[in-house]
Amino acid sequence: MSVSLNAKADAKATENALPLGRFISFEGTEGVGKTTAIETLCARLQANGIDYLRSREPGGSPFAERLRTILLDPATDINDDTELLLMFAARCDHVQQLIMPALQRGTWVICDRFIDSTVAYQGFGRAHGDAAMLAKIESLISQFIPQLPDLTLWLDLPVDEGMARAGKRSAADRFEQQASEFFTRVHEGFALLATEHSERICRIEATGSADEVSARIWQLVQDKFDLS
Amino acid sequence: MSVSLNAKADAKATENALPLGRFISFEGTEGVGKTTAIETLCARLQANGIDYLRSREPGGSPFAERLRTILLDPATDINDDTELLLMFAARCDHVQQLIMPALQRGTWVICDRFIDSTVAYQGFGRAHGDAAMLAKIESLISQFIPQLPDLTLWLDLPVDEGMARAGKRSAADRFEQQASEFFTRVHEGFALLATEHSERICRIEATGSADEVSARIWQLVQDKFDLS
Repeated sequence: MSVSLNAKADAKATENALPLGRFISFEGTEGVGKTTAIETLCARLQANGIDYLRSREPGGSPFAERLRTILLDPATDINDDTELLLMFAARCDHVQQLIMPALQRGTWVICDRFIDSTVAYQGFGRAHGDAAMLAKIESLISQFIPQLPDLTLWLDLPVDEGMARAGKRSAADRFEQQASEFFTRVHEGFALLATEHSERICRIEATGSADEVSARIWQLVQDKFDLS
Repeated sequence: MSVSLNAKADAKATENALPLGRFISFEGTEGVGKTTAIETLCARLQANGIDYLRSREPGGSPFAERLRTILLDPATDINDDTELLLMFAARCDHVQQLIMPALQRGTWVICDRFIDSTVAYQGFGRAHGDAAMLAKIESLISQFIPQLPDLTLWLDLPVDEGMARAGKRSAADRFEQQASEFFTRVHEGFALLATEHSERICRIEATGSADEVSARIWQLVQDKFDLS
């Protein structure tokens, strides 16, 4: 009779051999078609037998969703630094409670907005690219966010076209009640990020029909993660 | 007729000439007698014609008090990083909305707990003095807290004595439902801070009657701020 003294180590090796889930975030200004693109990608993952979890920011985990309610409430009147810290409190909970456990059990995470939205909206939109604010965001990401996306899809559409599309929807939240000039700076933020982090962020041409955009995304995801 | 072209500059000079308020924080483990000591100091400031504002952390400003409710709720189940960020979101609002405006109009601010409680409770108590956690706290203070106290009074009492006193009170909150070992680490944290920041933090012997402790504090405040 032989008893393996390495039962624990063997179990760990098997556990480690499980393919990790992939983490994909969607980014873009208002009205670029993130929701539809995410729905279609999720449907395609499912059709390919890939376990996935759809999430969003701010929010995602139960506690972060509680903070989301505060962050998006038009009645919330807080300064930019407080907002930034609250946003990262929500993100920190989201990453540790939902994203990392999912990836570790092999589930893909498809997230509507992540760190790049903070850089673009708070750093470029609100703070006009102020170096001190960008340094604060950078420091919060590096100290508190242990998991970055494997792939970030930036849906790029001219700001005016996006705003016209978004205008058709009702009930604008606190971030959507902003001027066109603001969104132009946000767009510039995303463009800069896509250049600086080209290994992670892919620009997706978001003009054309929803089907066309989704086809571009699926092609890219298949190539990036060797799906066939 | 002479018109001062420096009207704005003159107004600014007058404004700057206003004596700034002083910022005093009280620190210590549970049951050391902060509440009574604060009440007595405030009464003495008032008797000396000094305008003051009494505050507390977490909380202080309306928005920070909203976060305090979440932070102290025993049902709140969050990781240490999320708690830290939430604590600094509250502190950031408190400093910018309440403390700094008060100091600038010449009002003193007397605050029950401030940054040192975070270092002692989260850094030493919760994280056992972990270097990475202390670095995160340090970085949040330097990037998000533009106003530190002029004077911090650390009420020092043996942990057992404080816990026995605190035990007489009911309705322990989330931070008070901790083991004695935890409070011993918190106490060590305060002791280390008092050594490292001796220019700001004064250790107050908190044994003896409330009157004796308050007399020690008043003597120190008078000396530090040249009150006579």
